[in-house]
Amino acid sequence: MTFTPLPTDEKAIATIRTLAADIVFKSNSGHPGMPMGMAPIAHLLFSRFFTASGKDPKWINRDRFVLSNGHGCALQYIMLHLLGYNISLDDLKTFRQLDSKCPGHPETNHGVDGIEVTTGPLGQGFSNAVGLAIAQANAAATFNKDGAELFTNKTYTFLGDGCLMEGIASEAASLAGHLKLGNMICVYDDNHISIDGDTACSFTEDVEQRFLAYDWHVLAVNDGDKDLAAMYAAIEEAHKVTDKPTLIRLKTTIGFGSKIQGGAGTHGAPLKADDIEQVKTKFGFDPKQNFVVPDEVVKAYGEVQQRGTKAIEAWNKVFADYGKKHSAEHAELQRRIEGKLPQGWESALPTYKPTDSAVASRKLSEGVLAKLAVALPELLGGSADLTGSNLTRWGDAVDFQHPSTRLGDYSGRYIRYGVREHAMGAIMNGLNAYGLHIPTSGTFLNFVSYAVGAVRLSALSKHQVIWVATHDSIGLGEDGPTHQPIETAGALRAIPNLNFWRPADGNEVSAAYKVAIESRNTPSVLALSRQNLPQLEGSSIEKASKGGYVVKEAPGGKADIILVATGSEVAISVDAASALKENGINARVVSLPSWHTFEQQPYEYRLSVLPSGQPILSVEVYSRVGWQAYSHVQHSIDRFGASAPAGALYKKFGFTPEVIAEKSQKIIAHYKAQSIKAVSPVELHAAFVSE
Amino acid sequence: MTFTPLPTDEKAIATIRTLAADIVFKSNSGHPGMPMGMAPIAHLLFSRFFTASGKDPKWINRDRFVLSNGHGCALQYIMLHLLGYNISLDDLKTFRQLDSKCPGHPETNHGVDGIEVTTGPLGQGFSNAVGLAIAQANAAATFNKDGAELFTNKTYTFLGDGCLMEGIASEAASLAGHLKLGNMICVYDDNHISIDGDTACSFTEDVEQRFLAYDWHVLAVNDGDKDLAAMYAAIEEAHKVTDKPTLIRLKTTIGFGSKIQGGAGTHGAPLKADDIEQVKTKFGFDPKQNFVVPDEVVKAYGEVQQRGTKAIEAWNKVFADYGKKHSAEHAELQRRIEGKLPQGWESALPTYKPTDSAVASRKLSEGVLAKLAVALPELLGGSADLTGSNLTRWGDAVDFQHPSTRLGDYSGRYIRYGVREHAMGAIMNGLNAYGLHIPTSGTFLNFVSYAVGAVRLSALSKHQVIWVATHDSIGLGEDGPTHQPIETAGALRAIPNLNFWRPADGNEVSAAYKVAIESRNTPSVLALSRQNLPQLEGSSIEKASKGGYVVKEAPGGKADIILVATGSEVAISVDAASALKENGINARVVSLPSWHTFEQQPYEYRLSVLPSGQPILSVEVYSRVGWQAYSHVQHSIDRFGASAPAGALYKKFGFTPEVIAEKSQKIIAHYKAQSIKAVSPVELHAAFVSE
Repeated sequence: MTFTPLPTDEKAIATIRTLAADIVFKSNSGHPGMPMGMAPIAHLLFSRFFTASGKDPKWINRDRFVLSNGHGCALQYIMLHLLGYNISLDDLKTFRQLDSKCPGHPETNHGVDGIEVTTGPLGQGFSNAVGLAIAQANAAATFNKDGAELFTNKTYTFLGDGCLMEGIASEAASLAGHLKLGNMICVYDDNHISIDGDTACSFTEDVEQRFLAYDWHVLAVNDGDKDLAAMYAAIEEAHKVTDKPTLIRLKTTIGFGSKIQGGAGTHGAPLKADDIEQVKTKFGFDPKQNFVVPDEVVKAYGEVQQRGTKAIEAWNKVFADYGKKHSAEHAELQRRIEGKLPQGWESALPTYKPTDSAVASRKLSEGVLAKLAVALPELLGGSADLTGSNLTRWGDAVDFQHPSTRLGDYSGRYIRYGVREHAMGAIMNGLNAYGLHIPTSGTFLNFVSYAVGAVRLSALSKHQVIWVATHDSIGLGEDGPTHQPIETAGALRAIPNLNFWRPADGNEVSAAYKVAIESRNTPSVLALSRQNLPQLEGSSIEKASKGGYVVKEAPGGKADIILVATGSEVAISVDAASALKENGINARVVSLPSWHTFEQQPYEYRLSVLPSGQPILSVEVYSRVGWQAYSHVQHSIDRFGASAPAGALYKKFGFTPEVIAEKSQKIIAHYKAQSIKAVSPVELHAAFVSE
Repeated sequence: MTFTPLPTDEKAIATIRTLAADIVFKSNSGHPGMPMGMAPIAHLLFSRFFTASGKDPKWINRDRFVLSNGHGCALQYIMLHLLGYNISLDDLKTFRQLDSKCPGHPETNHGVDGIEVTTGPLGQGFSNAVGLAIAQANAAATFNKDGAELFTNKTYTFLGDGCLMEGIASEAASLAGHLKLGNMICVYDDNHISIDGDTACSFTEDVEQRFLAYDWHVLAVNDGDKDLAAMYAAIEEAHKVTDKPTLIRLKTTIGFGSKIQGGAGTHGAPLKADDIEQVKTKFGFDPKQNFVVPDEVVKAYGEVQQRGTKAIEAWNKVFADYGKKHSAEHAELQRRIEGKLPQGWESALPTYKPTDSAVASRKLSEGVLAKLAVALPELLGGSADLTGSNLTRWGDAVDFQHPSTRLGDYSGRYIRYGVREHAMGAIMNGLNAYGLHIPTSGTFLNFVSYAVGAVRLSALSKHQVIWVATHDSIGLGEDGPTHQPIETAGALRAIPNLNFWRPADGNEVSAAYKVAIESRNTPSVLALSRQNLPQLEGSSIEKASKGGYVVKEAPGGKADIILVATGSEVAISVDAASALKENGINARVVSLPSWHTFEQQPYEYRLSVLPSGQPILSVEVYSRVGWQAYSHVQHSIDRFGASAPAGALYKKFGFTPEVIAEKSQKIIAHYKAQSIKAVSPVELHAAFVSE
């Protein structure tokens, strides 16, 4: 097809530009430059190509749009308004105010349709888009049949210089090129401006050549301010190349129309009132009127909306027909679209008896994944080049690879992410955002830190992703302090809506997966050991699924002290309790694999596990940060680890039953001598938590 | 010069290879593949080019070597042994054991000479090397004079596929190309193997083209196993190009000599005993002898050592002569080499009176930096493209840029890092590791998270770097939850040897800089507000330099409750105390800007600030994680923030004097009603901390 200009194009673009200026001016905060510069490409993309509808915003085959340069979100809100999504003109007037539908950066899963992923932190959206594109390719390869192409959608992404400078985008771009994701089309807003001024000051690489090196299809449009025909041709050409992602370098003028267009001054602050007036005059608008959408633009976008509605109607017919011919696949897809888990999936979870042999929890996780890979077709595994260490791959897994590589195909459910943890985190967010997958991926726990920028967005965006974070402590041994997490657990536990698990044995590993799979709006990190852990007497999936429980009751039910631990330290604490018993001291041992899940239990339950009345000592081979919420005294490691065999390290850092028993006795004596009433931190906090 | 083969070359290379196999076999842990593959280039580089000496390992103009693929550190330890550094043959036999000089990955500042930076976490070393190269270029531009080229050293880096896949390396490479760092020479070990197997599974980009896009000088050597002449020629050619960093793509065979050479099996586990025997036989060694360094190799490396010693002698003469002609520069350089601060530098720190106006702490930081830029020539500033927001640049700063850009020159002390937080963190580590600079760089506090992989290595490696982390809370307002740190403070406070500061006013900002500058072995993060903060009655540099102090004593000296806060919440807590006074309740207010520094004070002091006897309420607009170490109850934000003006957010989240006063009253009543003895967490912890 060739480009057919419409008489309303110019007015529509001017509407976007003036609305952007008005929105930011009214809120006295925000970024007008990018929306004014990218208005033409946004108009062209959404009016000519983009297939979706605000009437059915979760339609599974909708085109996806990602605004990776999310600070320009006024543009996205404007487009969603014009396209009939649930953002009204009045909503636009509340930009960046409390409880607005139009917050300072786009937030997905917060009530606004059409926001696929949360963007703003640079490079994330672009990397999410790679996830959306992988999910699409996987869905197409899994469900499409001859004559029933259910999955045909594209992922369109806008991004800026800032995104391209971020390492996460380099990781994602390299992987996208490797995977030959032809369903991904990106528009790079080459406006030569970043916050510090002209990009000449820090960003002079040849972006086109760089993306060619990644094996992308690279195009350039030199006039993104006006040349709609060239933009149209570029997107058309992008559609034709189906075995490479496309990057369109689009030269634009930031703040186009402003008296200070082309300068950093238009980037992150409202334009002046008189400047906005001249913009409006220049574009044929009444300079004194604000938030104007001319009738002809409303009408033009009404036609665009109809195109979307019709596409969905046509698709629904295809899907119904598909159901007649492929009833099993139809039912399966319908289930996944609805976000339901298969009936009885949890029976796949292995259980263990105390007599079963000691196994590393990463190995226990491998056993779970092997079962879940069968029970849950939505599971999409992977590792950041640590497959053999993370044990994330099941026996008959097929790699997600372009078929031409002969290393796998697009129906494969195991992704070789390469050593790209940050992109992996963001790609998992995109995979989940597509709506059909639960991604699970591995790296060492310590290197989840490389990805924490994406992890916090998983949590904020309510994406269900699962990190298989092995080698979870000094227990990894000889690799040493560069690889041994000390602060990582504390850091992850402090992120709202992130579930950090550190299971102690096989039943607890199963429980961690059970809760992680059932939590459709919460990401999870499973910290798993390199070293073997014994199967505990007193653990069960049911008990561990509460996040914390009494794994060993004190003799006679009356404890002199409570030991609370996680992971590899639970068994050590159980042994410490036995040692204490020999000295006539009764200790309860509590396993607390998930603080997040434990906090969701009723107060009475939590207090019954960690009651007032005796001192509580926490035992964990990490920084003590945070443990004071559950214990009075902490046995912890508040320095970096060391390089040595694991056994030597546990001894060096005092994580032995003997040392813990001795410390327990001192604590009991101190509380008695000082007449300290041991109020459980759980009780104390609850007294004030309602505020 | 052309390559002259030596009769000992082959034996020396074989020695390195067999030693690597022996070292990993004896420790039964480690990575033999890379050392065996890179032995030839290591031998060539160190025997022909590298200028340094184990006799004077801190010589400031020494060539720097960085092993970015740090898992192959057996190679580095072997080379340091051969070169006469403080690693003996017996030390090599303790590889990866407790308290060994040869830990699992190279650790700088832990007693082993010649380890310039800590590597292992992939991509870090390469990015450190960019910092080392910048520092060298800056030192040369600052101190070199006609006829006295004091600074001429190169930075040599080995790196592997894993480093190149990591985003941090992309960021650093792009910046290095932009800065035209001709003093940096990197050897990419193109062995086609990563942990998951052949790089074909995830890493198929064209690395040469990618680095050309970054404007690097790119060379290739196709036989890194044997072709010493080609390797020599490549390094020679790299030396000739002085306005671009050089990447030499070197094809090697991982595990060269092993029966399983070229496969992933040689990467991360010892070779089998019989395989090592055949390796030794193949290379003309006695298969039954271990840890053999033939006399001829000892002798050859003795000559290499002499070359280093002579170079240092010659340099010392030049430096002495320099002292005669340029006594001021000589004294200044000598001071910086010795790591001493200028006499009286701290008098540059501004002080404030309560009557001074309210100012954002980022703005107060700007005032400090303007003074310190003059007082401390070793200060090297910068920002990750947020200069105008971080306020990190002083008035007459010159940018560090290649002179051909006309945007600055190499003597400039302000680095435009671009939007590259992770590389910025690692580059700061390299800058500090060079030995002459204290780097200070800015981004938003929330985006320090992008760099935390580098931040933890700053702390482990004892690098003095200073993060100017502005927009430190919900107080940044409209940008919303994607930009508002909640968990970040907790995460950073949990890192050992990292000093996280959150100053409350001008005197506290000065104190934070004072301690940060005086801490020569500790990195600091200064969390600074976007919004204005009043100057407190009761603050001073001296008091705040203790990390925590009583900023407002309770009326009559007897407190019913203690409020402990940081940053913007200190003034709110002072107001809450005033509100409580009106209800007849006496509250002490404690400011605790640095937990790390507070923990270094004597126990008696800490307990005097936070004594037992009354409940303690902490007040901070972050996750409560960690605060239980200082308070009984926490007023915190344990969810993500929101997008709105700052004032609206403080109200929404209950951070007003009224809410805090009301909560305080409830706490006092509860403690009284329940007869809870309020034992200070400081006292409780101290009773057991000696263990």
